[in-house]
Amino acid sequence: MDKFNVGKHISGKFNEELGDVRNQVLTMGGLVEKQLSDALTAIQTNDTELADRVLDNDGKINAMEMRIDAACGQIIAKRQPTASDLRLVLAIIKTISDLERIGDEAERLAHVAKASFNKDQEHLLVSLENLGQQVLLMLRNVLDAFARMDEEAAFSVHQMDANADRQYEALTRQLMTYMMEDPRSIPKIMDVMWSARSLERIGDRCQNISEYIIYFVRGKDVRHISPEMMENTVRGR
Amino acid sequence: MDKFNVGKHISGKFNEELGDVRNQVLTMGGLVEKQLSDALTAIQTNDTELADRVLDNDGKINAMEMRIDAACGQIIAKRQPTASDLRLVLAIIKTISDLERIGDEAERLAHVAKASFNKDQEHLLVSLENLGQQVLLMLRNVLDAFARMDEEAAFSVHQMDANADRQYEALTRQLMTYMMEDPRSIPKIMDVMWSARSLERIGDRCQNISEYIIYFVRGKDVRHISPEMMENTVRGR
Repeated sequence: MDKFNVGKHISGKFNEELGDVRNQVLTMGGLVEKQLSDALTAIQTNDTELADRVLDNDGKINAMEMRIDAACGQIIAKRQPTASDLRLVLAIIKTISDLERIGDEAERLAHVAKASFNKDQEHLLVSLENLGQQVLLMLRNVLDAFARMDEEAAFSVHQMDANADRQYEALTRQLMTYMMEDPRSIPKIMDVMWSARSLERIGDRCQNISEYIIYFVRGKDVRHISPEMMENTVRGR
Repeated sequence: MDKFNVGKHISGKFNEELGDVRNQVLTMGGLVEKQLSDALTAIQTNDTELADRVLDNDGKINAMEMRIDAACGQIIAKRQPTASDLRLVLAIIKTISDLERIGDEAERLAHVAKASFNKDQEHLLVSLENLGQQVLLMLRNVLDAFARMDEEAAFSVHQMDANADRQYEALTRQLMTYMMEDPRSIPKIMDVMWSARSLERIGDRCQNISEYIIYFVRGKDVRHISPEMMENTVRGR
């Protein structure tokens, strides 16, 4: 199925521009995914150099967002897209905003990776690992769904968030117990708490992106509706 | 100065549509401001009924976001706006996304307002008050700047955030001290901590909106640039 209507446009130049901007989003998504993955690795391996690299790269993501946003504005002004072309451009404008903010959360995680933890505090960081891997998988899957504009895959990512939320709740309860047991470690545990929150927010942003994908494919805004209604929309019922 | 180019459009209908969508944003902004203000009052006065009202109203804000988003899509498709008209529509699409998320933070604050605090824990809530009022003022001012598309006023809001950040830092340090002094109260203090975080994020979102205003007026993307460069853009230098 030619979801991008490549054969439809009279102007080959328009095709080229839409394709180019899609590729830029995928490149940006790839970098954001690497940032999150590197930030998680830096936390687990206490690798401050890797954390510094994550911090250095955030500017690249910001620049990409601004460049893609400008390209989308030019496409709207010059090509006056309608129907699914317009939905694609609008979905891209929203997607890059969420990607940029996922990048910001990765930056926050990298700051925590640079904070020094004692040997006997390392279990705190281990407890972040499961949630981190769950959220990284959500990001990978939603970027993959975006590349293929696959509304079923997008819906699957949307459903994964409930699991991430449960893990997050369990983790924060565990961290609060640690704080009560050893009040001196509270500042360190708060660092981990913020990291957990960052991960939970990344999951929410992956959900947002999956909503934009479904909007593009189905032409229907599926934000703020029940899971059942969303599923019906995805399945074209 | 006719920043909205009302005299320019050949189509009176187009004027009407743009004016209508702007009014809808102002209505949405007014409701979000009321939500935040009510949530803060509910926290201070321990008013669970008011908190319930905030929770009930969130659906209205979501519906407004979807309606305005759809109207913007239709304007682009039907009117094919360019230049400042297009910038206005794009600025609106982004603004309502931030407004909706400010609404979500107000909802989180309302949940905390419903949690029961003992008499001897009330000082925790009082400490939120200053930050809350600072952020509410930012929201008011940025909505006012949006109504007039006043780039100077938007820039002032942008600069207010540094103060909100400082207050937030001081508050979290204070809350951590309370946790260390009385570990049994940690779960309650964490509620206050999340509220402080919500307020800090609202300040960030007001900054975002002020960036969209400057983008509309000056035609330049001022995200991710230094305060000096932003000031030069605002002043047309």
